[in-house]
Order: sequence, then C-alpha cells, then structure tokens
Amino acid sequence: MSNRLTRILTAIAAMPPVIAGIIWLNDIMFFLVLLLLILGGTWEFYRFLTADGKPLLAFPVMTGAVLIPAGFFLGGTSGALFGLYIASAMVFVIKLFGKAPLDDTYEHLSVSMIAIMYYPFFMSFFIPLREIDFHWLFYLCAIIWFSDSFAYFIGVMFGKRKMYELISPKKSMEGLAGGFIGGITGAFLYAHFFMEISLVHVLISSVLLTGAGVVGDLVESMFKRKSGIKDSGTVFPGHGGILDRTDSIAFAAPVLYFYVMLAV
Amino acid sequence: MSNRLTRILTAIAAMPPVIAGIIWLNDIMFFLVLLLLILGGTWEFYRFLTADGKPLLAFPVMTGAVLIPAGFFLGGTSGALFGLYIASAMVFVIKLFGKAPLDDTYEHLSVSMIAIMYYPFFMSFFIPLREIDFHWLFYLCAIIWFSDSFAYFIGVMFGKRKMYELISPKKSMEGLAGGFIGGITGAFLYAHFFMEISLVHVLISSVLLTGAGVVGDLVESMFKRKSGIKDSGTVFPGHGGILDRTDSIAFAAPVLYFYVMLAV
Repeated sequence: MSNRLTRILTAIAAMPPVIAGIIWLNDIMFFLVLLLLILGGTWEFYRFLTADGKPLLAFPVMTGAVLIPAGFFLGGTSGALFGLYIASAMVFVIKLFGKAPLDDTYEHLSVSMIAIMYYPFFMSFFIPLREIDFHWLFYLCAIIWFSDSFAYFIGVMFGKRKMYELISPKKSMEGLAGGFIGGITGAFLYAHFFMEISLVHVLISSVLLTGAGVVGDLVESMFKRKSGIKDSGTVFPGHGGILDRTDSIAFAAPVLYFYVMLAV
Repeated sequence: MSNRLTRILTAIAAMPPVIAGIIWLNDIMFFLVLLLLILGGTWEFYRFLTADGKPLLAFPVMTGAVLIPAGFFLGGTSGALFGLYIASAMVFVIKLFGKAPLDDTYEHLSVSMIAIMYYPFFMSFFIPLREIDFHWLFYLCAIIWFSDSFAYFIGVMFGKRKMYELISPKKSMEGLAGGFIGGITGAFLYAHFFMEISLVHVLISSVLLTGAGVVGDLVESMFKRKSGIKDSGTVFPGHGGILDRTDSIAFAAPVLYFYVMLAV
C-alpha cells in the first residue's frame, strides 16, 4: 500500500479522536497532547540527524521542544520568544562550557538550532490558533486532508509528468494540481458549513496553506532521502511516524496563524 | 593596546553618539540605525562561518536579519515571530528548490539557521526595550560598560587565576569578579539617578545581565578562535568589528527584556 494512500486512511482513522480532542479537551490537556506530539516529532528528527552522522546537543533541543510550546501556552507570542531565546542561548552555553568547545563548534551549534526550529517552533502555532478559534484548526486539517486525498487520487488516475523526481519520485504535476483543487474544496466546504469568512479569504488562505503543506511534505522527503530513512518512526504501526503524518500541517500552521492575524 | 582596553576606550568614545541616538532619534531612525548594525554584525558572522569552511544560504540569512527587527518594529512580538517564521521557512524552501538539495543538506540548512538566530534575533530585542522605556537601554549599557571596565582594571591589577584559558586566555577569575562588581555598580548608579526600580530588581537584573554579557563575550571568543579570526571586522578602525563591540550586549538584551516583562 502506497505511502500516500496509507496517509489518507490514517487521516480518516485519526479524524474522530482528533476532532474530539480539539473540541472537548480543555486547554491544559490539549497542550499536553500537543507537547507529546512535538517531543515525539523532535525525537524523530533527532534520529534523522544522527542517521546522517550529525552530532547535536540533545538537552537544549529537548528544552526548546518543551519551552516553545509552553511559552506560547503560558505567555502568548512573548512567551514563545522567551522559549526560543532560552533554548537558543542554551545551545551556545552548553557548547561553550561542555567538553571540547572548539571541536565541530559550528556544526554542533547549528544542527542543534535547526532541531529546535524545524519542528517545535512550527508545530507550536497550533496553540495560538486554537486560542483564536478552534474552527481554524479544523479549517487547516480540512485543507491538508482534502489536498492530500485529491493529490493522491488524481495523481493515481492522471499522473504523467513528474513533479520533483529527485526528492519524491512518485508525485506528479497532475497530483499537485489535484492537491490545490482539493485544498480549495476542503476550505470552501468547511468555511461554508462552520465559519463566517469571506470567499476571497477562503481562496487566498487555502492556496497558501496547500502550498505550505506541499513544501512541508517535500522538505521532510528531502530529509528522509538524505538520511536514508524510509519512515520517520513507527508510532502509527505500519503507517510511519509523527513527522510523516504532520510534515505538511507543521509548515502550514504558522502560515494560517499569520494570515488570520494580518488579514482576517 | 589590549583588546579589552580598546573596548573600553571605544565605549567611552561611542557614548555621546549612542546616548544622543537613543534619546533623540525618532523610532524609524533608531530602527534603521539598529538595522544597519544587525546587517553588519550578521555579515561579520557570515565571514566567521565561511572562514571555517561552512557553506550557508546567504539570502534567507539576510532576509532574517531584516525581517526579525522589522517584525519587532512593525508588529511587536507577533511580528518578530513572523520574521522568524519567514526566514526559517525560506531556509528550507531555498535549499529544497536550489541546486543539489541532497548535498550537505543538514549542514547548509543548519548553518543558515544559526546565522539567523545568533545575532539578528538577539539584537532585535533593543526595539521592544526602547518601546517600554529608553532608560532600559541606558541601564543595559551602563551595566555592560561598567562591567567591562571593572573587569579590565581589576584583571590587570589583581588577575592571577585563569578564567577559561582555552577560549579567552587573557581573562582571569579576579577580572570576572570585578566584572560583576562593576555591573552591579553601574546598575545601582544608573537606577539611582534616572529610574525608579527597587533595589532587589537592580541587584538581580544586574547580576543576570553581567552574566549574560560574560557568556556573550566568551561565545564570540569561541567563534573567533574556531574560525582563526582576530577581529570580527574593521568597522571601527583599529578597534575590531561590530560583533567585537556588541557580543555582550546582544546576549544581555533579551535577558533584560524578559526580566522587565516577567518581574518588574
């Protein structure tokens, strides 16, 4: 069974608990579930880096994976910056006072920093989005899920021209077009039934979010190819890991947050 | 003339324009001057990295060096997060769609990310500090300048035990103690004459800021040693570069911002 079909079936299976979680969990429980997800995804990315022989400072990375979402949860945007500062400063301090501060200095520091930014920072935007209105989370999920499904089925049926063979050989341009049609469809359906936003905002935001999702998916494919890893993990048995299932949504969540803040 | 004495003399020479700038420049001019400083410092750090053979993506780095302070200036903490997100996402996107996305993937990405975080992110905290009250900037400068001066003179007079020979062979434990005494003295003097904050806050914040300044100084020394560079640049003829003169203050600025937000 192909990875994309697996993803779609996992998404369908995951829908009831995710929907229930977003609506019924109280703020603290939602935060804790998200925190587990972030820690798990960060751990998977840690494995990507070590598989490619990159040494990193685990303590500041895990601190960032906790403090950035916790900062958002407790102190909003200012709190998120606090988490980012503490984790970044800790990268420098631990390298400086650790053993061998002059060995692989930039590599150690840099690889640790990217592990703080790649997943924890991006995923943390679920918290302010839910605080604005939990419908935005469903809106985001609707776009990503519809986009994935359309991309898969249209790709299977009509796919001819390769989209980016080096990174993701199975994806086609036809599937990409289908993904955008799906993303826009999902957005219109969700907004029509559950939200009050203008059609222009639905159109612009769904195109932006689908695009961000496609990029997030390709970025994770680039990492997996580079590290020679097939699935990011085995959290969902037979269905890959946390990064596999959330690569698109992690890239799209901040886009939606800033779109809502700036435009809606 | 030693580097530390040079720094003190430069600081004294820089005082009148810095004081005038902080007080009399309007917001936009202050932002533009700070932006120039950030761009210059980021360029110097870029040279550190290339001197050590580290390849990085210049475009997202310079985008971050503009967008993070601009975000703070135009949109506060939320704007800063926006700048961070755009610059980080751009790192991934440019690597993904550039030539050879699978060559040196993690190194390229990571080194670019650290160049975004190290200097632009930390230095941008001058903007919200000035918005709260420009006296905080003077307070910060007073601590760093007094701390540097005391550390130098007490180090020269009484310095015996090495502080961290591998990284900064000229510094002594006696100088470090002098630095803390100087930082606390500077804070008490400035707060006594110009501000209304409790002695407890002055004591705690001056110790924290002096400590952050010492760490920032050592981190830059670690970088210079690793890259085999003596001065970070030649912006101040004979006096080193921008990073040399702002390494301490860049690390201390976010600490002061969060201290003011959380405690004062």
